Amino acid sequence: MLKTPTIIVNYKTYGASIGEDGLELTRMIEKESEENWAVCPQAPDIRMNAENSNIPVLAQHVDAIEPGSHTGHDLLETMVDAGAQGVLINHSEKRLKLSDIEKIVDRCEEEDLTTIICANNPEVASSAAALKPDFVAYEPPQLIGGDISVSTAKPEVVREAVKKVKAVDEDVEVLCGAGVKDGEDVEAALSLGTKGVLLASGLVKADDKKKVIKDLEDGI
Amino acid sequence: MLKTPTIIVNYKTYGASIGEDGLELTRMIEKESEENWAVCPQAPDIRMNAENSNIPVLAQHVDAIEPGSHTGHDLLETMVDAGAQGVLINHSEKRLKLSDIEKIVDRCEEEDLTTIICANNPEVASSAAALKPDFVAYEPPQLIGGDISVSTAKPEVVREAVKKVKAVDEDVEVLCGAGVKDGEDVEAALSLGTKGVLLASGLVKADDKKKVIKDLEDGI
Amino acid sequence: MLKTPTIIVNYKTYGASIGEDGLELTRMIEKESEENWAVCPQAPDIRMNAENSNIPVLAQHVDAIEPGSHTGHDLLETMVDAGAQGVLINHSEKRLKLSDIEKIVDRCEEEDLTTIICANNPEVASSAAALKPDFVAYEPPQLIGGDISVSTAKPEVVREAVKKVKAVDEDVEVLCGAGVKDGEDVEAALSLGTKGVLLASGLVKADDKKKVIKDLEDGI
Amino acid sequence: MLKTPTIIVNYKTYGASIGEDGLELTRMIEKESEENWAVCPQAPDIRMNAENSNIPVLAQHVDAIEPGSHTGHDLLETMVDAGAQGVLINHSEKRLKLSDIEKIVDRCEEEDLTTIICANNPEVASSAAALKPDFVAYEPPQLIGGDISVSTAKPEVVREAVKKVKAVDEDVEVLCGAGVKDGEDVEAALSLGTKGVLLASGLVKADDKKKVIKDLEDGI
Repeated sequence: MLKTPTIIVNYKTYGASIGEDGLELTRMIEKESEENWAVCPQAPDIRMNAENSNIPVLAQHVDAIEPGSHTGHDLLETMVDAGAQGVLINHSEKRLKLSDIEKIVDRCEEEDLTTIICANNPEVASSAAALKPDFVAYEPPQLIGGDISVSTAKPEVVREAVKKVKAVDEDVEVLCGAGVKDGEDVEAALSLGTKGVLLASGLVKADDKKKVIKDLEDGI
Repeated sequence: MLKTPTIIVNYKTYGASIGEDGLELTRMIEKESEENWAVCPQAPDIRMNAENSNIPVLAQHVDAIEPGSHTGHDLLETMVDAGAQGVLINHSEKRLKLSDIEKIVDRCEEEDLTTIICANNPEVASSAAALKPDFVAYEPPQLIGGDISVSTAKPEVVREAVKKVKAVDEDVEVLCGAGVKDGEDVEAALSLGTKGVLLASGLVKADDKKKVIKDLEDGI
Repeated sequence: MLKTPTIIVNYKTYGASIGEDGLELTRMIEKESEENWAVCPQAPDIRMNAENSNIPVLAQHVDAIEPGSHTGHDLLETMVDAGAQGVLINHSEKRLKLSDIEKIVDRCEEEDLTTIICANNPEVASSAAALKPDFVAYEPPQLIGGDISVSTAKPEVVREAVKKVKAVDEDVEVLCGAGVKDGEDVEAALSLGTKGVLLASGLVKADDKKKVIKDLEDGI
Repeated sequence: MLKTPTIIVNYKTYGASIGEDGLELTRMIEKESEENWAVCPQAPDIRMNAENSNIPVLAQHVDAIEPGSHTGHDLLETMVDAGAQGVLINHSEKRLKLSDIEKIVDRCEEEDLTTIICANNPEVASSAAALKPDFVAYEPPQLIGGDISVSTAKPEVVREAVKKVKAVDEDVEVLCGAGVKDGEDVEAALSLGTKGVLLASGLVKADDKKKVIKDLEDGI
């Protein structure tokens, strides 16, 4: 389980996060920040990041499969063998079938992995919560990839997501999955009842990454 | 809203349910049975069935789209125009993404259509219930397409699904979506707390359809 | 087989093409134009259009399935029963797997249906041609849904598609699948070696549909 | 480009091919055999295999994407960074859209990677050949995962695939993608005009892997 409040950095498939470049960022986070961070490298880079840092590594996705004849699929056991301690599930760029989400959460539980289901609105968040993941990451569509941040946008939607998730299962924690760029955003997200944030380009594509890391860290 | 207890007949894409053959079955149901039935013809046959019978007609699927540039998709408004009064969502043969299921339920609500989300286990059933459809149709995988019926198989799983669904939302009703072949199965399903059944080949492919209809009707 | 040169009107899932509105357009085409036209209504509207006009009706899509247990799928046999004489395959809004395209073409051949595979560039067009459809509809991405028309945009790409398709199979004809708005565009498309055009919003969403039909007809 | 005749071993997502276990097999192949082999480990294991052996490593799949915001996808550049020299495309367990296959082949060409498109019948093989990959791997469905081998099954289908591929593009080579278990099968496949074979469980799940490697090697 991740230490909360948590800041999860999604490396996506950015050119700037491939191989050594991604590892360099992971090491920078490790050096600059406390223990509340986690990183999501691309599948071929998971082992490299897990072996060369102490930051928890999460897979960006796994498929709802068992070991077997599944060429080109992402197998949970292989992610774990490579060093993954958790999984992003149903990210807005990798939406999954409901039955597959349930199966992945179920399999992750057996392997004692941290599970984070992404959700695009409070209704989907409450549906995701019913599957008992560790976290639901609520990504308000109006905040994805734009310049609007959760600290300035209407905070009601995040509060509503937290409320709906808790109504279904008090044990499921909520993350803010979009609109986070600086420490102020982190603080705002936490004040709305979330236990952390998910961010990507705001850090991965930043010119002065060290400065962004410190700023985000200050928001915890 | 369908009148419960309900018996919903899924015509699938069976050769025996195409066009006039499907309509003949719809008329037979109308003649033999009371008002608790509904039928799910293929998309090109919806209008034909809706115009030539009083049995509620449901679409087998709609896509999570708005009117617009979506060649080859199933648009809710067109199904409604053709006469559909409800929609099967996330059938085991047409599994959908969680975010699409939510959008479809939301759009159906606006159009005042009956919504039935199919679910493959009690966990998925509770997750589906959080989206507030009218019904969750629980399809125990061990009962799909086989000879085992819900009246003889362990009934705990159906009871558990009903319990989990009601724990999330008392207003959502449960249907038994597999393992129903005769009136005894219908009776068993209802006794377990469901409000009806979903069946397909057991009637569509039956030699003596009239007999099967009467038998099922007796189970209500 | 469609009579060439052909003008195929894709009704997509536009709100303006649902049910009676679509049929009205079909009847208008029938009244105003010669026999070179075809229409692609939504699945629930195929029978209505086929029964109430003499214009060939094409399905916007079929799935690569046989009759059987495939809830919510588009079965070729049902489209044919409803009156479809051909199928759009792999439209840019409904891209298909290569193996499914092959299977659909193969099944259409058995049923003696006209097949039109859409392709987004000359390479895909030549690959599609190897599957021996009746037509390959080349949709230059730069012409889709925009204001640029094939008569003003660089015509080399269309010529190259025709050349590549003919190099693979001399019997496969090419259609221009984007950038057609008026008779001048139709004329330009035909002059580049195609045997017709595919259009949608340019007619379906037009204010004065009668005028657009006549103008397009003049381009033949 | 792979040295032909080639034997390509697909590690799939077998439990027996994860991490060190897969690497052990790669090293065994390197030690026992000549230079005609290649291996396809799972994505998280590509770097490990490429760094610790001289056997060419191929990715089991890449997505038709550019670097950017694509969480959970397989990016070509990352596979290359990890050491992949080529890619399996459209494997029977990971069928792709025609337009995506074309884009992947196109992108691989820019990166000078070996491309192998899998095909399920001679028609699909000829369609794949039109996209100008290095190889088309023909997988006769009747030979997949069964006990029938290409040396005993009717060889006409393989010969027909070779003929159809060469008719479209003389430069595209054909591999036999199913039904290969021993050296005799390799020999049979080569005698039918192919330039190599693709195999998986026959080696990955073998008890005496060393023996199987030697036997296959003898077939070249």
